[in-house]
Amino acid sequence: MPSDRPQPAFVLVRPQMGENIGAAARAMWNFGLDRMRLVAPRDGWPNPKADAMASGAGRLLDEALLVADTAAAVGDCTYVLATTARARGLTKPVLSPERAMVVAAEKIAAGEKVAVLFGPERAGLENDDIARANAIINVPVNPEFASLNLGQCVLLMAYEWQRAAGQVVPERVDLAKTDWAAQVEVEALAAHYEERLEEAGFFFPEHKVESMKTNLRNMWSRMPMTRADVQTLHGVMRQMVRWKARG
Amino acid sequence: MPSDRPQPAFVLVRPQMGENIGAAARAMWNFGLDRMRLVAPRDGWPNPKADAMASGAGRLLDEALLVADTAAAVGDCTYVLATTARARGLTKPVLSPERAMVVAAEKIAAGEKVAVLFGPERAGLENDDIARANAIINVPVNPEFASLNLGQCVLLMAYEWQRAAGQVVPERVDLAKTDWAAQVEVEALAAHYEERLEEAGFFFPEHKVESMKTNLRNMWSRMPMTRADVQTLHGVMRQMVRWKARG
Repeated sequence: MPSDRPQPAFVLVRPQMGENIGAAARAMWNFGLDRMRLVAPRDGWPNPKADAMASGAGRLLDEALLVADTAAAVGDCTYVLATTARARGLTKPVLSPERAMVVAAEKIAAGEKVAVLFGPERAGLENDDIARANAIINVPVNPEFASLNLGQCVLLMAYEWQRAAGQVVPERVDLAKTDWAAQVEVEALAAHYEERLEEAGFFFPEHKVESMKTNLRNMWSRMPMTRADVQTLHGVMRQMVRWKARG
Repeated sequence: MPSDRPQPAFVLVRPQMGENIGAAARAMWNFGLDRMRLVAPRDGWPNPKADAMASGAGRLLDEALLVADTAAAVGDCTYVLATTARARGLTKPVLSPERAMVVAAEKIAAGEKVAVLFGPERAGLENDDIARANAIINVPVNPEFASLNLGQCVLLMAYEWQRAAGQVVPERVDLAKTDWAAQVEVEALAAHYEERLEEAGFFFPEHKVESMKTNLRNMWSRMPMTRADVQTLHGVMRQMVRWKARG
């Protein structure tokens, strides 16, 4: 059984080698984390190499949530962090590992559900994954030699989580009562706007369509929206469509 | 050539597997450390397995100082730290990794020479080694599962060194460059939406009009928007109006 200790979910996105999944489990459990989520592991699941490497942390693999895509992995989460070696000029907050885990601990203490995304070994997270994140974690490695592997990146984040979790005092009550939108609701809002704007001819010219869509999704995921905000924005779009329909 | 950056020496005491020595070199160089010392590696030196694992950090192995015992490894140092999983009731200061690297940075800045000792994989440092240390570093792992390997222990210490040495990439790099929307631009956006939504019949029923408008304005002002976001949102609304006009 997973511990009932409040904690972020660590999401391995399309991990490649079983050994690295096992090493990630060990790294997590070394610092008391035991909620792993797996997005489409390359070599299928379960994976004997992962089990062999995990040794005493094998329970995390047995209990890991296996999903088909990143959207499903973070659907119930209200705050998503993405680890990346390059900040890539995305307009999202870029946090140090320490700061990111302090923020995560504060949000969790206030009742939110937090996920941390880790990319595949070689390529790292794709822009589509990062678009779902509220903020980015950048590990400040030596620019001449940035070769952290998946297990090491998970280790540093788990280590910082444990440091942060020991320090955070629960936040003020007023924020704790805020009904933040879950990722799946933001996702639905983004899809609603995308669909209607497509219909309305917003995405133009052709060669800019993809980047326009990514920008729009990045914007939604970056906004700290309550459930009520999401409803309002749905309402705005619905009304414009109704107005159009009236001719 | 080793860098001339002031830094502690990382001393691997009687390391066993070549792979772990290579992993330690990579972990160090990831955080800009390049002064390794090796005390009597079990399988002799040089070690092809260490070279293979070190890949881009192989220079650290070529330049490592090879010595026969711990005394020789720390002979020139004025302050020695010993990593251990168990504090063993020795009468020495026990420091967290963070605190230890801050102390190391202070001493190095004051012209001292500092070494950090890492024990062999299975057994850890012997009491004889620890006796040479001024203080002990205790990594606060999960008491139910303490399985940090040599490379991971070196990684955490190198990470904390870099943080302490003040080489950490400033936070929010990207956001600092971000072109945030000015209040007057957010105001114009709010007005644009309000006007169009009024026209489209969004504000209804009558007795709720004022609170709906206030909610909408609150929402815009609460969102951390860039200039580009504001332009995007203007564009969204303009397009809906154009679409309506096409009938």
